[in-house]
Amino acid sequence: MTDLVEDAQQTEIDSSPPFDLGVVDDTPEVAVDLGRLQANIARAASAAEAHGIGLRPHVKTHKMPQIAALQMRAGAVGIQVAKLGEAEVFAAAGVPDIFIGYPLVGPRKVARLIYLLEHSDATISIATDSIEAARPIAAAAVAAGLRVPLLIEIDTGLRRLGVQPHQALNLARDLAELDGIELAGLFTHEGHVYTHARSFEEKRAMTRAACAAVADTAEAIRAEGIPLATVSVGSSGTFRFAVECENVTEIRPGTYVFNDFTQVLQGAATQADLAAFVVATVVGRPEATRAVIDAGSKVLTSDRLIVSHPETTFGSVAGYPGAAVTRLSEEHGLLELPPDTDMQVGDRVAIIPNHICPVINLTDSVSIIADGVFSERWSVAARGRVQ
Amino acid sequence: MTDLVEDAQQTEIDSSPPFDLGVVDDTPEVAVDLGRLQANIARAASAAEAHGIGLRPHVKTHKMPQIAALQMRAGAVGIQVAKLGEAEVFAAAGVPDIFIGYPLVGPRKVARLIYLLEHSDATISIATDSIEAARPIAAAAVAAGLRVPLLIEIDTGLRRLGVQPHQALNLARDLAELDGIELAGLFTHEGHVYTHARSFEEKRAMTRAACAAVADTAEAIRAEGIPLATVSVGSSGTFRFAVECENVTEIRPGTYVFNDFTQVLQGAATQADLAAFVVATVVGRPEATRAVIDAGSKVLTSDRLIVSHPETTFGSVAGYPGAAVTRLSEEHGLLELPPDTDMQVGDRVAIIPNHICPVINLTDSVSIIADGVFSERWSVAARGRVQ
Repeated sequence: MTDLVEDAQQTEIDSSPPFDLGVVDDTPEVAVDLGRLQANIARAASAAEAHGIGLRPHVKTHKMPQIAALQMRAGAVGIQVAKLGEAEVFAAAGVPDIFIGYPLVGPRKVARLIYLLEHSDATISIATDSIEAARPIAAAAVAAGLRVPLLIEIDTGLRRLGVQPHQALNLARDLAELDGIELAGLFTHEGHVYTHARSFEEKRAMTRAACAAVADTAEAIRAEGIPLATVSVGSSGTFRFAVECENVTEIRPGTYVFNDFTQVLQGAATQADLAAFVVATVVGRPEATRAVIDAGSKVLTSDRLIVSHPETTFGSVAGYPGAAVTRLSEEHGLLELPPDTDMQVGDRVAIIPNHICPVINLTDSVSIIADGVFSERWSVAARGRVQ
Repeated sequence: MTDLVEDAQQTEIDSSPPFDLGVVDDTPEVAVDLGRLQANIARAASAAEAHGIGLRPHVKTHKMPQIAALQMRAGAVGIQVAKLGEAEVFAAAGVPDIFIGYPLVGPRKVARLIYLLEHSDATISIATDSIEAARPIAAAAVAAGLRVPLLIEIDTGLRRLGVQPHQALNLARDLAELDGIELAGLFTHEGHVYTHARSFEEKRAMTRAACAAVADTAEAIRAEGIPLATVSVGSSGTFRFAVECENVTEIRPGTYVFNDFTQVLQGAATQADLAAFVVATVVGRPEATRAVIDAGSKVLTSDRLIVSHPETTFGSVAGYPGAAVTRLSEEHGLLELPPDTDMQVGDRVAIIPNHICPVINLTDSVSIIADGVFSERWSVAARGRVQ
């Protein structure tokens, strides 16, 4: 993962999955190649270890306790979740350290957080970017006799949530005065690199700038006598650059466990790193250059590519260069094919989604394929946990 | 629904939902207004009855047996489902007549169909557009001593599945020779009207042309001595035109139970017909004209508008004219707001999704609101049943 260079970047998935598509019982079905999954987990773990940086995988990609367990066993310092409902699932599954990288707003969320803290052995840290959101949590924690570790979100260019770096010191001062919380660190998600940077060099430079913005802000806060241990960055697309950042203690990629068409086009993975496939059946062949498969937007999602690419499609067809999912209805995927493509009604194809994370969130379970053979079914235990 | 004219078409949702947003326990949450749901069901049922046409709602929109029961009680002749997995759920829930409007391809699907036919009291009819897909079903039905009602899909312009009208007679002849199946009718989904027609008159003309194509094809097949009872068309956007079609026996709208931003922009519903809302909480207010809500693509989907509209967004904000969901991450929705909008962190907002069907498919259950009060929780029993 860290040794990829711009030259390795692919724009088509011309190889087939490492298993026969007949291995799954019925379609559409998400099939995960266990060997590739384990290789992806091991490679990221080694890279983080080699650079002396903590790896905290974002489990919103897979939502499966089995995969979190593989990640923890490979040396992860803990996991990140997107929502409190996901934290509840992974805490119940025994993950010892969970960072909820999302503001918890509203009395019901605060009550659920306190309940989770009281009924779980896990260390649970949370995100904030405002004193308004932090105050009710601090008050509830004091009432419960708890102290909640809290990380400030820094906006390094994504323009989503987070304070600007220059605003962080003031927020840190305000937070430091609150009982019931412990200022544990700063974090950013440098997702803007996906869309704002084109070349390998631009991506590296933009990632380094994001790291530096957070690390420098942390240093400025520490200089005021406010202790702050964690400086956390991360995304799968920037992982190879972020592990090399100075003064960053933690990195939080998610998609790297499976990878997807976006990661390949980013140059952050090769097609040999693709571990999750949507196996579909051809149900119609209305024209020589057109086929219809049984996977539509209720399987593949409507996510477009978020990287610049000449043709924006809904996914790539593994092993069929020049083919793509060009139109989706809810249960129909329309493939455009090169002329003379040999594809019949009843054939199975493997789709590489643009973005694997929301695809996993659409299915109750996935088929695990080990050495080309169906091994078992893993439940997507935190699927749909958006509250 | 049938008395709408082009002049009634709205391009903004400037009214709020008919209930206080504090009525749901936590967010993001899909809240359904029971009064509006019942009114939508009753209005479509009356229109179909007034025109002497059978109403067969497509339940892929709601995936809830409770709503199918309301539709049947209002006089529906049966339901349509998109996938065999949905048929299994609704048959188990006691719906007496189910049309699976999708080709069943592959030995596993055929085996499941036969099992369902043998273990259910429901009348189950299926779709096909090729003799290749029909043959294995016919053979399995013969072996089981069954006869499966089958409808031929006609492509009237959507260019998805279905034979062209001029090909249907040949397919009907081939199908009539197969034991184990009974040629029950023809059907089309005139979804191309959403994207290909602009004005009220264009939409009406294009819908009538689709109806006529199917009705004329049915007549040509009957003229060959092949009996054929059902001529079925439908979509929610074309419902008001299709009920007036000559020689059509059945109509199959889906979205009309809830409606959505697309239906309003189509002029097929007014904002007073919106029955489903995504209630979200404001979790960030980074700029005067920007807010972040806790509903992202894992709640709202990434579905863009499929009707022409100056600005393509991911949803409308009820009661906030000029506001829209302009960007989505998986768990973040970014709202663009007019200057001076009064919206604070912790406030709740109601989003009108572009397309409600895949939104419902993302949630395990919905909150039912009756007369402004939380009534109960309905499980989306057929959610995720894509196989």
